[in-house]
Amino acid sequence: MSFIAEAKTLSIGEPLTLQCGAVLPSYDLSYETYGTLNADASNAILICHALNASHHVAGVYADESGAIKPKTEGWWDNMVGPGKPVDTNRFFVIGVNNIGSCFGSTGPTSINPATGAVWGADFPVVSVEDWVDTQAKLLDALGVQQLAAVMGGSLGGMQATCWALRYPDRVRHAVVVASAPNLTAENIAFNEVARRAIVTDPDFHGGHYRKHNTLPRRGLRIARMVGHITYLSDDVMNAKFGRRLRDAVSDAVQRDYHFTTQGVEFEIESYLRYQGDKFAEYFDANTYLLITRALDYFDPARPHGGHLSAAFADVKAKFLLISFTTDWRFSPARSREIVRALLDNHCRVSYAEVDAPHGHDAFLMDDSRYHNTVRAYFDKEVAA
Amino acid sequence: MSFIAEAKTLSIGEPLTLQCGAVLPSYDLSYETYGTLNADASNAILICHALNASHHVAGVYADESGAIKPKTEGWWDNMVGPGKPVDTNRFFVIGVNNIGSCFGSTGPTSINPATGAVWGADFPVVSVEDWVDTQAKLLDALGVQQLAAVMGGSLGGMQATCWALRYPDRVRHAVVVASAPNLTAENIAFNEVARRAIVTDPDFHGGHYRKHNTLPRRGLRIARMVGHITYLSDDVMNAKFGRRLRDAVSDAVQRDYHFTTQGVEFEIESYLRYQGDKFAEYFDANTYLLITRALDYFDPARPHGGHLSAAFADVKAKFLLISFTTDWRFSPARSREIVRALLDNHCRVSYAEVDAPHGHDAFLMDDSRYHNTVRAYFDKEVAA
Repeated sequence: MSFIAEAKTLSIGEPLTLQCGAVLPSYDLSYETYGTLNADASNAILICHALNASHHVAGVYADESGAIKPKTEGWWDNMVGPGKPVDTNRFFVIGVNNIGSCFGSTGPTSINPATGAVWGADFPVVSVEDWVDTQAKLLDALGVQQLAAVMGGSLGGMQATCWALRYPDRVRHAVVVASAPNLTAENIAFNEVARRAIVTDPDFHGGHYRKHNTLPRRGLRIARMVGHITYLSDDVMNAKFGRRLRDAVSDAVQRDYHFTTQGVEFEIESYLRYQGDKFAEYFDANTYLLITRALDYFDPARPHGGHLSAAFADVKAKFLLISFTTDWRFSPARSREIVRALLDNHCRVSYAEVDAPHGHDAFLMDDSRYHNTVRAYFDKEVAA
Repeated sequence: MSFIAEAKTLSIGEPLTLQCGAVLPSYDLSYETYGTLNADASNAILICHALNASHHVAGVYADESGAIKPKTEGWWDNMVGPGKPVDTNRFFVIGVNNIGSCFGSTGPTSINPATGAVWGADFPVVSVEDWVDTQAKLLDALGVQQLAAVMGGSLGGMQATCWALRYPDRVRHAVVVASAPNLTAENIAFNEVARRAIVTDPDFHGGHYRKHNTLPRRGLRIARMVGHITYLSDDVMNAKFGRRLRDAVSDAVQRDYHFTTQGVEFEIESYLRYQGDKFAEYFDANTYLLITRALDYFDPARPHGGHLSAAFADVKAKFLLISFTTDWRFSPARSREIVRALLDNHCRVSYAEVDAPHGHDAFLMDDSRYHNTVRAYFDKEVAA
């Protein structure tokens, strides 16, 4: 049983100039907080989300009568909460939905005040730096000058890294899980396949599908299927699905092949189709384009001629980095690049390479070695 | 300069019962031969093709005046020819297009004699076993009772393996490059994404796009892009494209970001789109479905309760297996499974794991360690 969470909204009237040059005249941020901010506002933890998550990090939602709504656990509920590795009895934890997303903060599904219509594809391109800037505004509003820690996995880890570079005086610790200093060509390639599937879906209508009362579901399904494959390891896929046929009695007692090219034959196909179908109903296609592009563009070494160590020159935060052995999307080698850049600058960094079978998805799993590492770091370093 | 090749057709009037139970009343096989069959017909080499290749293994095509047509080199021209690792001065080499394909042999783009219309999606599901059976008919017609060797890479390697299992007396050597005893869940998953992209393209029309005078180009493009990523290694993608922007001066001197979600920003995107566009113009969508399904279904251990060694009990051929260190589609570990099954049966097997950067595509590359291994095997073992 988890605690009851409540989503709030901060409306910011002040215009925001984005990295792309466009100006957002105003914007809303959906956020949640868990635990209590202490008197000197020194116990705040910001949790940054990855591609398809939101401000709803932990806890469950209740209806008006107080009854818990089923299946409303936050996306990192195993990590954040009372007595959990990031302990809300001790820390004041903040979750925030990023602009450009589709879960309450201003994004492509919001109304463009200049036209009175939904932004759609006209919503400007957002970056990791833009997200960090808006998160800083939220901290201002909450009375938090300096974070005890900023933490995130995958794209969330990029935001945590960006915080330490962009606001060196506002972060004491950065906890960066299953992340990378930038995307490789292969990472970009998978993103591009997903985007092309969405953009070339005839129901995309140049990103103005809502005007046409439709959704580019075919494209979203393909995007999600491709993404899902890259989140899992080959090993875990073989363990979970292997070559098992749909409706087989067991791995040992298989049915005959149906010999079909369009129907479902293997269990893995059924699983991927289900994931794709589910995703296409709840996720906004323009948001998918924006967030994958923010991933592509993030590259702190770029203004420094590709030298990551130079990019880290002003870092003051202490870092915990965690990677997973079977993560081939953001492999341990990518985390070690960040470790090296920190060491080159004599920063304090702890690094754990966790032997876990789950691939990139491991950062969301309840693995005791991983969770114990985070718990120890928060207890002994962040709370110290 | 390569030699002039000429495509031929064998028409087989005898019906063929496929693994799926359907019967093909008759079928054509497109094939080519290079070199001369010796008096006792003991120097024949069969080359099996993978997903998008054909019977045109080596040499170039000439027009009626005898002038060489540009860009018509066979797909394994660096491997097969006079003085090459598979030396056509010594061996009689046969290339054949598989049924279900779209380069001359009977397939979904052929006329269904029962209806007088193009087969399209009604073409029956074909298997690796079916291909091997039809290849055996071609050998009968050419007067070849026993192959000196059967050779192939990737799906072609599966056919070579299948030959040794299905016709143990007709194969002296099997040369299996960058292959696997079956697909993993991840391999099937990537195939399924590609198939869903094709099948859900509104221009697919249930596989009868030709009746609608259209082609499912969007789906084919996505399918090819996904496939292409899996053929390359992360390393070679980083070396070839890295994070270089399209139209950048160099890796060191990059332009500013355009901040676009639908346009081309990175060089890798431009490359993948180009590959997708090209493929969508020449490859048949129904063939893509059939051939990826043949890959999924191939599993010689299946009738033996998953025991590969049991499947290899009747093998008489000697094997050469070659894998490439950076091939993550068909990793060296998968080739070693075949080596183990052969050793369990006291078969003679040579195995080379080549340290090459090119991923799965390495099997098509002109790598001297790889080619020298093949050359030595053909000179010292196959010709002996």
